[in-house]
Amino acid sequence: MQTNDLPQGFMAGAAQAGFKAKDRDDLGLIFSTCDAVAAGVFTTNVFKAAPVLACQEILKNHTTARAIVANSGQANACTGEEGLKNCHATQKMIAERLGIDADAVLTMSTGVIGDQLKMDKWTAAVPDLVASLGSRDAEGFTRAFMTTDAFPKFASKDIQLSGGTVRLTTMAKGAGMICPNMATMLCVCLTDAVVEPESWQSLFARCADRTFNRVSVDGDTSTNDTILALANGASTVSITAPEDAAIFEKELTDILRTTAHMLVKDGEGATKVMHIHVQGADSDADAEQIARTVGHSQLVKTAIYGRDANWGRIVAAIGRSGVRMRPEDVSVSLCGVDLFRNGQPLGGNFDAQLEGPLQKEDIPIEISVGKGPGSYLLEASDLSIGYVKLNSDYRS
Amino acid sequence: MQTNDLPQGFMAGAAQAGFKAKDRDDLGLIFSTCDAVAAGVFTTNVFKAAPVLACQEILKNHTTARAIVANSGQANACTGEEGLKNCHATQKMIAERLGIDADAVLTMSTGVIGDQLKMDKWTAAVPDLVASLGSRDAEGFTRAFMTTDAFPKFASKDIQLSGGTVRLTTMAKGAGMICPNMATMLCVCLTDAVVEPESWQSLFARCADRTFNRVSVDGDTSTNDTILALANGASTVSITAPEDAAIFEKELTDILRTTAHMLVKDGEGATKVMHIHVQGADSDADAEQIARTVGHSQLVKTAIYGRDANWGRIVAAIGRSGVRMRPEDVSVSLCGVDLFRNGQPLGGNFDAQLEGPLQKEDIPIEISVGKGPGSYLLEASDLSIGYVKLNSDYRS
Repeated sequence: MQTNDLPQGFMAGAAQAGFKAKDRDDLGLIFSTCDAVAAGVFTTNVFKAAPVLACQEILKNHTTARAIVANSGQANACTGEEGLKNCHATQKMIAERLGIDADAVLTMSTGVIGDQLKMDKWTAAVPDLVASLGSRDAEGFTRAFMTTDAFPKFASKDIQLSGGTVRLTTMAKGAGMICPNMATMLCVCLTDAVVEPESWQSLFARCADRTFNRVSVDGDTSTNDTILALANGASTVSITAPEDAAIFEKELTDILRTTAHMLVKDGEGATKVMHIHVQGADSDADAEQIARTVGHSQLVKTAIYGRDANWGRIVAAIGRSGVRMRPEDVSVSLCGVDLFRNGQPLGGNFDAQLEGPLQKEDIPIEISVGKGPGSYLLEASDLSIGYVKLNSDYRS
Repeated sequence: MQTNDLPQGFMAGAAQAGFKAKDRDDLGLIFSTCDAVAAGVFTTNVFKAAPVLACQEILKNHTTARAIVANSGQANACTGEEGLKNCHATQKMIAERLGIDADAVLTMSTGVIGDQLKMDKWTAAVPDLVASLGSRDAEGFTRAFMTTDAFPKFASKDIQLSGGTVRLTTMAKGAGMICPNMATMLCVCLTDAVVEPESWQSLFARCADRTFNRVSVDGDTSTNDTILALANGASTVSITAPEDAAIFEKELTDILRTTAHMLVKDGEGATKVMHIHVQGADSDADAEQIARTVGHSQLVKTAIYGRDANWGRIVAAIGRSGVRMRPEDVSVSLCGVDLFRNGQPLGGNFDAQLEGPLQKEDIPIEISVGKGPGSYLLEASDLSIGYVKLNSDYRS
């Protein structure tokens, strides 16, 4: 099978509703020919967009869904009661055309926030959208919810289990630079495996936490971030035997990591990816806090962008993270070169040693803060002139 | 008196030690002709620079000091035991020349971190430095510890109390953009008022917390941030009568606010100052957390830089602050224009309404999150192409 092919029993469609000025698809639809077990991971932002609230309502009461509709150009966030009413209306339009229940239609939106949905354009586009089912592949669906992504992000994998082969496909857009307005990250994950409704949400949430929650572009958590996962069982191959479960979880984690990595890598703004690995903290939470403080530091991000072996900015960020530590327990290396050990600077011509490694796209930063069991790996992008340009010019 | 004159009993000097390539003063000295009651407020970073540790040692055991030595070009941070030994050696050199105790010499450093002090240059420069006392004014001292500040930052004020007139002078450098390498903020505050040794530290810390701790350039807390305050009593005018105490505290707060405001305003990178006022939170701490999340958001900072009425970014930052709130309690106005009330967007052509106000340098952002008593005002700079340029090019 091609990367572009969806798992069995899924169809994709897209349409030009005209939410954006450009002449391109801005509305995408995924349809499962049978009930699919559904899971969702959503933004932790207090201001959840209407499509997020609508998905959460559905998943509270239902374990299955049939369709996912995604639009770009309008975030339907911070739109209050009218926004939620409009979102429900779009679910209903699509459900009626497909002959399914409105509660089986999950929703995703990205774009400028605060504006109400253009309902006349929705009404006009839905017939075309539903009629287009089967005409698009993974890339075609992905292109419909792209905003300023430099490339469409999708991946597929066939997995051999004891009962046969199942397929996993992810389609994503975002983040940060890529969607300058809201840093929105959207991802759809489809599989034809047979999964248990009781455990699909926790399995998927666990894999998402290990992958999507460990990348950062600018630290801004969108109102719309959504990952939805549908498993329709069309392959008739189950993942429940212990060894199959282990293989499937590993492969799911891998494909989500690949997809998350594409998000950090993309964008006119991002030129490098820092791989910030913190070890020896008292807990994983402490390690995470240190990694995020370093990964979000404007001074660290600009130094890495400038290929500057300015390791003091990394040490300063560790020190202001709020995590309790003893300076004499802290060691740092950059691109494999030890710079700071047990709270003391190491001698050496670091500028010369690091000149070559800092030209590369991937920048490993190893941080050790003691002998504790806590660790965390964060992938974070640099901060470039391109980032500021795109984010300050976006609407003007 | 001129703005440039120091309070009675204080003298300033400066010298060219050659820490920086440029042909300019890089070493400054303040001397009090009599014992001065001393207070200090320091960085909360775990990695405190050697001069910070040296000051903290002194202020733990002594309530008075006689001199402050400040250098640019070398931060003496992350320099381990050798760094602290070097710092003590500089105190000793200066104390010997002045005929005072080494424990009476407070220290401040700013510059590239990780390098050890150039002790040969210190040794050569100290005689000139001490000999220059009396030859410099407030501006002259300030210029000695400037790094890339666009202008020297100092202010003076004569205050009428019941017993006569006292004078307050502040001299500062920093932050963020202004000292791209470490975002270091240094400030010296001098007064000839008679103060009580028991209460000077708490009075000064209170005023600094209301002012310096409420400005933000990039959220990066330096290893070297230091504010030192000396009160030498040379005016013989006391601040202890209740009404005098109230006047003095108000005037001290005012001059520190003025000084802090200069820090945010300065810099090739900063083009605007956001005045982020949060009200109605459960506590001041909650209000502060919301204000800092908004003020540090790269998406908010770049929107303000781009003069974009993109209020959704402000609402999204409020929502991800980690503070518990109900969306329906949240209201936001930008430059006096109401945009979002009780969790609902307000209609209006905001782009047109805000086009004029967003051209200005000062950008008020009013945020209300409920009916609680907690409030906070943060001044934060925008994020410009200039910031990234300066911070990525600084050492290359």
